[in-house]
Amino acid sequence: MGGRPDMTATIITIGDELLIGQIVNTNAAWIGEQLTLGGVEVIRSVTVGDSRKIIQDELGRALEKGRIVILTGGLGPTHDDVTKHAVAEFFGDRLTLRQEVLDAVEARFASRGIPVLDVNRDQAIAPESFQAIVNTAGTAPALLRRTKTPKGEGLVALLPGVPHEMQHFMEDAVLPEIETLGEHGAIAHRTLLTAGLGESLVHERLHGIDELLTDGVSLAYLPNLHGVRVRITVRAATPREASARRDELSDWILDRLGVLVYGEGEDTLEASLGRALIRHGYAIAVAESCTGGLIAHRLTNVPGASAYMVGGIVSYGNSVKSGLLGVDADVLVTHGAVSEQVARSMAEGVRQALGADVAISTTGIMGPGGGSADKPVGTVWVGLALPGRTEARLLRLGTSRLRNKERAAARAINELRILLKES
Amino acid sequence: MGGRPDMTATIITIGDELLIGQIVNTNAAWIGEQLTLGGVEVIRSVTVGDSRKIIQDELGRALEKGRIVILTGGLGPTHDDVTKHAVAEFFGDRLTLRQEVLDAVEARFASRGIPVLDVNRDQAIAPESFQAIVNTAGTAPALLRRTKTPKGEGLVALLPGVPHEMQHFMEDAVLPEIETLGEHGAIAHRTLLTAGLGESLVHERLHGIDELLTDGVSLAYLPNLHGVRVRITVRAATPREASARRDELSDWILDRLGVLVYGEGEDTLEASLGRALIRHGYAIAVAESCTGGLIAHRLTNVPGASAYMVGGIVSYGNSVKSGLLGVDADVLVTHGAVSEQVARSMAEGVRQALGADVAISTTGIMGPGGGSADKPVGTVWVGLALPGRTEARLLRLGTSRLRNKERAAARAINELRILLKES
Repeated sequence: MGGRPDMTATIITIGDELLIGQIVNTNAAWIGEQLTLGGVEVIRSVTVGDSRKIIQDELGRALEKGRIVILTGGLGPTHDDVTKHAVAEFFGDRLTLRQEVLDAVEARFASRGIPVLDVNRDQAIAPESFQAIVNTAGTAPALLRRTKTPKGEGLVALLPGVPHEMQHFMEDAVLPEIETLGEHGAIAHRTLLTAGLGESLVHERLHGIDELLTDGVSLAYLPNLHGVRVRITVRAATPREASARRDELSDWILDRLGVLVYGEGEDTLEASLGRALIRHGYAIAVAESCTGGLIAHRLTNVPGASAYMVGGIVSYGNSVKSGLLGVDADVLVTHGAVSEQVARSMAEGVRQALGADVAISTTGIMGPGGGSADKPVGTVWVGLALPGRTEARLLRLGTSRLRNKERAAARAINELRILLKES
Repeated sequence: MGGRPDMTATIITIGDELLIGQIVNTNAAWIGEQLTLGGVEVIRSVTVGDSRKIIQDELGRALEKGRIVILTGGLGPTHDDVTKHAVAEFFGDRLTLRQEVLDAVEARFASRGIPVLDVNRDQAIAPESFQAIVNTAGTAPALLRRTKTPKGEGLVALLPGVPHEMQHFMEDAVLPEIETLGEHGAIAHRTLLTAGLGESLVHERLHGIDELLTDGVSLAYLPNLHGVRVRITVRAATPREASARRDELSDWILDRLGVLVYGEGEDTLEASLGRALIRHGYAIAVAESCTGGLIAHRLTNVPGASAYMVGGIVSYGNSVKSGLLGVDADVLVTHGAVSEQVARSMAEGVRQALGADVAISTTGIMGPGGGSADKPVGTVWVGLALPGRTEARLLRLGTSRLRNKERAAARAINELRILLKES
């Protein structure tokens, strides 16, 4: 952990549905990660139900032990607003109407032609000593307040429990406010995103790095279905020194991992592929059997994808493979739908049918049914058609249908990205 | 919450990796669910780091407020065994070697030809007042102890943090031990899944329900991008009474919400649509512009979807709309790609091109760019083609591209589901 000993935080998440395990507490994990990246040490994370007394107890303890308290949940319209009342009572605040919050909610609802209900109006009421920040993605505002603590000037933040609203407020309001709370020392981060190797192999490629992880420098490997994120954190006396040491380490890692790194921070595989397509001036089409539209979905998640994405064909039935994609019926019978020949033919077929320059195809067995000794669940062929050449890749995935789709889509996108990078 | 006021629990999960958000705390959710199902009311769930002092603080508070304390994490071989030492000190216990635990570990390792390390031997040491239960799936034992609390006879359990080991001990040792602690009531749950209305409107439709929420009966609204889940919880003296009251309330709600309820528990919108398609004997095809493949992806997430899913066309470029889907080029020019006419024509076109019985289409502006005064970002037309009739729906969504895709896909799937239910 390490961190600055003076800058400590408690996370309080509120909601019966968390206590009884109906929802896994991803908010606490996300907030913990962001605070840690911001140089704040999280000392406790507490989940309680919608009880005024218990919330006040926890808030009191949190302000004894640390300087920062993040409360989330319990602000939604049908909740009892227990959190807001508990916090108001704790600070001896009256609740006052925030006209700017109400105006924003009314404008939002009006633009959609939805009536504003009393429960929505109640959300514009806040404890008087708190600053209310308008929610651009929902109705509950964020509420922030500076406060004295035994360890120095502190911050109490009440955030809505809806993850994307909470995240938006953390990034835009809470973390910047924490920056102003005290002397920090400087911190520099970078997260390099890799695809194509598992955690242990990335680790092997970075053999020797331990010697570079001197005082204040740390590295974390964060695996997901698409690859491994390598997060660099450097603490130093000045921002300039922190950035310089971070850049140095980052260059060392990039040198070892090469084309495996597709971006950094919040970048995505599909955005990285999109940039490669723009660089080459290529239009792309996809033909998906086993991924069922997921590759097209991911490619079109990128803003501006229409510059290079022509479209795709989801050929779930064999009639679509032979009809729209022109896969030879004999090839389907001889080699089976899940075969190298069909994957190649699908990629070439969709490239031609949609008038694209490059194409991706997938055909495979995602499970739970449909496997055989020869082609077990998890067998996937990926086709990659480029001007003047077509390639294929065999993937051997697991038994979970949804994870297989995710992994096959990521692998297919990554393989084309690497081909374009190398050509 | 309600529940039996005498049987209350605190969950204490231990580990820096949880606090900094490197791992999401699924153990706390799982334990919370099991305790709740067992008729125990979880009042707090706390996560702390590997600190003896903080663990003792939390244990003390937990035993003041409730009768059951589950501690997990911090018992693994590479951890500092902080938990065990903290708990021993708390109860004034010496640490003693448990020969039966050591024997089991040695036998386990011998059968695999692995040497027993000192760290494994240390795991056989336990606070003297605790019962040690051999771990058949790992090395750390579970440690259990009865204790007096202000609310009556209580239980403290220390479990390993590895999920499947923890789960095994909960089911085999902790929950049965809790059963012996006192008289229990019974508990019954149901979660009804709705789509098509926001949280406040669902609430309005259930006007009058507050009178039914008598002692032991509670209701929670859990919104997400696809709709609102309505969770019923009933506590009563016997399982029969709990189920009967749950069914009664459930029927009342179903009566008010009707076709808005698409399933319960872990069901999905796409699986619900799939069942409706099978009932009608219909094959489905999709034509997606703005959702870019997401609807096809969701439909093919359902195991066995190949029984009714023919395929789809992602018509991102207008050339695909006119070419493969047969949308009249004049209509595209006159009304624009985002129009009721084009949505209808796309749905009819893909239905015909792929030989399906029903079809969904989407065309819209997902942002961030591409909006106009006339058709702002978030404008989406959905087309629904059925045998002998075609319908269209106008959606007005928000400004976030990814959320717009999710919401449009969910709405489109839900609209077809409702049409099939009604026909």
